Amino acid sequence: MNLKDTIRSIRDYPKPGIIFRDITTLLGNPRAFRQSVDELVQPYAGTGVEKVAGIEARGFILGGAVAHQLSAGFVPIRKKGKLPHETVSIAYSLEYGVDQMEIHRDAVLAGEKVILCDDLIATGGTACAAAQLLRNLGAEVVAACFVIDLPDLGGAAKLRGMDVPVRALVEFEGH
Amino acid sequence: MNLKDTIRSIRDYPKPGIIFRDITTLLGNPRAFRQSVDELVQPYAGTGVEKVAGIEARGFILGGAVAHQLSAGFVPIRKKGKLPHETVSIAYSLEYGVDQMEIHRDAVLAGEKVILCDDLIATGGTACAAAQLLRNLGAEVVAACFVIDLPDLGGAAKLRGMDVPVRALVEFEGH
Repeated sequence: MNLKDTIRSIRDYPKPGIIFRDITTLLGNPRAFRQSVDELVQPYAGTGVEKVAGIEARGFILGGAVAHQLSAGFVPIRKKGKLPHETVSIAYSLEYGVDQMEIHRDAVLAGEKVILCDDLIATGGTACAAAQLLRNLGAEVVAACFVIDLPDLGGAAKLRGMDVPVRALVEFEGH
Repeated sequence: MNLKDTIRSIRDYPKPGIIFRDITTLLGNPRAFRQSVDELVQPYAGTGVEKVAGIEARGFILGGAVAHQLSAGFVPIRKKGKLPHETVSIAYSLEYGVDQMEIHRDAVLAGEKVILCDDLIATGGTACAAAQLLRNLGAEVVAACFVIDLPDLGGAAKLRGMDVPVRALVEFEGH
């Protein structure tokens, strides 16, 4: 099936001029959700991926399914203050200002092969910071996987500029 | 393997006297994560479950994997203001005050068989509200699945009192 047809576009959300790509209609469609996860993992089956890191919160949904399908562990990358044990953090830019994301210091080991997972890559602020956070712990980021890429916003190019291979299933022009 | 051994207990978090059961060590362990998902879904394979609803945020991780394993769709139940389309909401009690959770109005159809998923059931405030929210849309809540039950806090009993079957893989005494 054409995954793009299962994604709902919402005009002027969260503000005028923005078309929000709503992935919940894809997730709620059993065939589309299954196909998305299976297509995301297909290149990595049998390649020794040990962990899948998901970015809070929508990245948890796909990341959990991808980790299970690959028989890998799952690692949450969360907003500041949400993880209960010792963390390392990294700052990233928002449209106005900066924020921080965190990972448990013992969540990945040096040399482990990790896939980063989120629903959508736009400007790449969170994804690049998450990839750097994993590298700061010594992990090998073998790929960053997304259902949706908005290539005009440049995030996928930024990740590739960090030598992180990017896999996305669907592209939308504009933002 | 014994799943309980893979859960980290953190004393005096988030406040003195509380032992926090940290599921991230289970999730990060490939065998424990796989076993958890497989044990959670085992009774429901082939029973026609159409949707798995996960409660933000840790319920997204297990819920995504459970939905994929059952070839079901995934439905997010989120904190107020996070879902982009038309929602229905329900209030639930916190330790101090009330909060609201939301679901997209079109996320489940009347008569659909839905499994509710979260990492842990304690007092049951969020889980009971989430089950009621699904029922308000006409769904049949065939089960609520958790990795951890803290039975002394009474949440599982409250769910069963709503005629929601409860499945949990691990129990801890106290809170």
